[in-house]
Amino acid sequence: MDYRNFVLQGDICYSKTAHSLVTAEHSFLVCTEGKSGGVFSRFSHIPRPYRQFPCIDYTGKLIIPGLVDLHMHAPQFTFRSLGMDLELLEWLETRAFPEEAKYEDRNYALQAYGALVATLQEGPNTRICLFGTVHVPATLLLMDLLEHSGLVCMVGKVNMDRNSPDTLREQDAARSAAATQAWLEQCGTYRNCTPILTPRFIPSCTDELLRRLSTLQRRYGLPLQSHLSENLREIAWVRELCPESSCYGDAYARFDLFGGDVPTVMAHCVYSGNEEIALMQRRGVYVAHCPQSNMNLASGIAPARRYLEAGLSMGLGSDVAGGVHTSIFRAMSDGIGVSKLRRCMGAGDEAPLTLEEVFYLGTRGGGAFFGQVGSFEAGYELDALVMEDPRPVPPFPLSLRERLERIVGCSDERSILMKYVRGLPVPAAGFKAHEGPRGKIRSRPLP
Amino acid sequence: MDYRNFVLQGDICYSKTAHSLVTAEHSFLVCTEGKSGGVFSRFSHIPRPYRQFPCIDYTGKLIIPGLVDLHMHAPQFTFRSLGMDLELLEWLETRAFPEEAKYEDRNYALQAYGALVATLQEGPNTRICLFGTVHVPATLLLMDLLEHSGLVCMVGKVNMDRNSPDTLREQDAARSAAATQAWLEQCGTYRNCTPILTPRFIPSCTDELLRRLSTLQRRYGLPLQSHLSENLREIAWVRELCPESSCYGDAYARFDLFGGDVPTVMAHCVYSGNEEIALMQRRGVYVAHCPQSNMNLASGIAPARRYLEAGLSMGLGSDVAGGVHTSIFRAMSDGIGVSKLRRCMGAGDEAPLTLEEVFYLGTRGGGAFFGQVGSFEAGYELDALVMEDPRPVPPFPLSLRERLERIVGCSDERSILMKYVRGLPVPAAGFKAHEGPRGKIRSRPLP
Repeated sequence: MDYRNFVLQGDICYSKTAHSLVTAEHSFLVCTEGKSGGVFSRFSHIPRPYRQFPCIDYTGKLIIPGLVDLHMHAPQFTFRSLGMDLELLEWLETRAFPEEAKYEDRNYALQAYGALVATLQEGPNTRICLFGTVHVPATLLLMDLLEHSGLVCMVGKVNMDRNSPDTLREQDAARSAAATQAWLEQCGTYRNCTPILTPRFIPSCTDELLRRLSTLQRRYGLPLQSHLSENLREIAWVRELCPESSCYGDAYARFDLFGGDVPTVMAHCVYSGNEEIALMQRRGVYVAHCPQSNMNLASGIAPARRYLEAGLSMGLGSDVAGGVHTSIFRAMSDGIGVSKLRRCMGAGDEAPLTLEEVFYLGTRGGGAFFGQVGSFEAGYELDALVMEDPRPVPPFPLSLRERLERIVGCSDERSILMKYVRGLPVPAAGFKAHEGPRGKIRSRPLP
Repeated sequence: MDYRNFVLQGDICYSKTAHSLVTAEHSFLVCTEGKSGGVFSRFSHIPRPYRQFPCIDYTGKLIIPGLVDLHMHAPQFTFRSLGMDLELLEWLETRAFPEEAKYEDRNYALQAYGALVATLQEGPNTRICLFGTVHVPATLLLMDLLEHSGLVCMVGKVNMDRNSPDTLREQDAARSAAATQAWLEQCGTYRNCTPILTPRFIPSCTDELLRRLSTLQRRYGLPLQSHLSENLREIAWVRELCPESSCYGDAYARFDLFGGDVPTVMAHCVYSGNEEIALMQRRGVYVAHCPQSNMNLASGIAPARRYLEAGLSMGLGSDVAGGVHTSIFRAMSDGIGVSKLRRCMGAGDEAPLTLEEVFYLGTRGGGAFFGQVGSFEAGYELDALVMEDPRPVPPFPLSLRERLERIVGCSDERSILMKYVRGLPVPAAGFKAHEGPRGKIRSRPLP
């Protein structure tokens, strides 16, 4: 059976816009060469060439786009949930930095990243932007593991040449850039796992380093990920370090590392002001909204609705290990929750986020950073989750939207029956590729 | 084997105070007649009469007190996670009230409560205070199910005779009180599941009803549970309904339904002012802090640290289905998270809660409402969870406190190997009573 050409039959949900959720019960999703051929409510509506595809019967199951995590730190997965009662700086010093330093040891990285990748395979995310560490061998190892995981990821070797502990800081801008170039030369053949430029954040990168990264960016045509306006002390620090920049975002923009021709995603944006918002809008910079991390690290609550209304590109991030949970379902429900707190704590008047909005952000919103990803409209790359209703199922009938609400709020990886990325099944503990999908395969659907 | 007399061997954690966590690796917890005989670091330290008890070897596993949920709504479990993007009033009208009305049908209640109780058996909570509905047969049915579940619970038939939808409101105070008395007459023989007086909250109870409930309270010596100062509109409403009361809490106190001789637990207390705090302190009223619900229903963030410092009795509540998750581990991690947001959103200067504090609240703090419960000090009723470290385990050594942090932050019911309440194993899907505990049973531990 060719997994890249098939039809999935079941109860299908996907986003059209941030406000419009398509719910199609008992419907058919066509996959042709790894892309969506569209969703059809009846078999007879499927265009003729697709009707001969094998049809996998997931009647009664939900079929939704795979989730997109726009921000996580791969080396921090090991200590997720540790130190969550610390504040940011203490947490960085006692947890994050010492742990990241360990990845100089390739054996340590193998063990740690192996466990991470297995966990990611079992979870609902299909696309992920990951920070690695400054270490080239460990970052290549992570990319190797991800390349064969079935997931599609962007991974960055981190750059940091100032204001960081000696165990992690790169010696100077030249060596940091040279290591980056060496890394880029070695990851050219990956298909599913591609490099993304990753200056840690303004306080840990000298101007000279940013200048060199900008040169590399142009040479290799790389996307970029970093942090922006996460907390007030950090913003004050950036103001001090870059007195010539009009806002934090401008400190990247001055080196052509902030959108425009450079696909850019910035994590957090808890405190982006009007000027920064306008700059991001103008230059098409993506926001990775990370509600759990912003709570855990006492950063605050990002004005996500404001960004949506300003038309910013936006998705969700787990920010593991500022966030504890890799699943973007958790980011969706936390996103609704903190948006309510934001209003009732008097931080803003915006209405809380809706289910439609957070589902959009966690699929199509973030997916756009990967191209035509995160929806089932014809032409989109086919990332899909086949999911069972979390148990116990209520003793009353549920609309498809309500079933999706339950998936978002109380499912875990046990609810995932099957996971496809670009039309290929993701191998994981639960669903080994060689066993084929769990649904019934028929040459055509039951009448 | 007599399950009420045994020794558990493993890595033991429990709270002494809100600030003091005992972590005892490779230690022995004695259970004698269902109560703790103490924790001992060596076999030779165990008092002689206990040394002949069978020793169950859980080496490498964590042994912690069972968790205590001071506030949940049993009939709302069916719709947990639905409507979480609504605000409180809309949620009550479209979700909570219509669902509760269904429990007039005993068959519906059987189906719904059956699923709830099975879920509770599998989870980490061992003691729970539950709201039922106004319906006597359904509430008795719930108590029946819980009585045989192995858990120890307090369950209340709800009273509400004003400001509620017709489908739920009891006709008048006399009939509400008469139904309550009829209910009490029928639940006298339970051993594990005992009644608790449950006026819904001040806005839904007339003075006449509260007066009658107070009479019943004195006659039957009942504890009491209700809601207090959950959100600002509710508080303003109570002020309007009870102009003679000096604060919301005083509206209960005027009818002798607020602590003193009446063991009382009040859910939420998001906005209790100085006078209310002083009243609660004076009368020993318990706070059920429900961080997830207070976020989901846009209520706000309770000043939990302030209550701790004021010496209030306090525990945690899931408040399902204002909260989505029954597990009090979730309330612990949410409790830390929202306490950080509270400060960084400028709502108070108090330091965030620590792991020690939330663990205390979810075990010993709430357990005190049930008596000597929630700790392993000698004399405490022996409620215990035997837990495995959540996977994947980090590739570095963990202290016992760190392992507890991971249990709190990223375990789920799959990590629970065994659950004891009053020294008896709780039957559940994973660990049927007749199979006995999963550890190795030896007449005495290995040297």
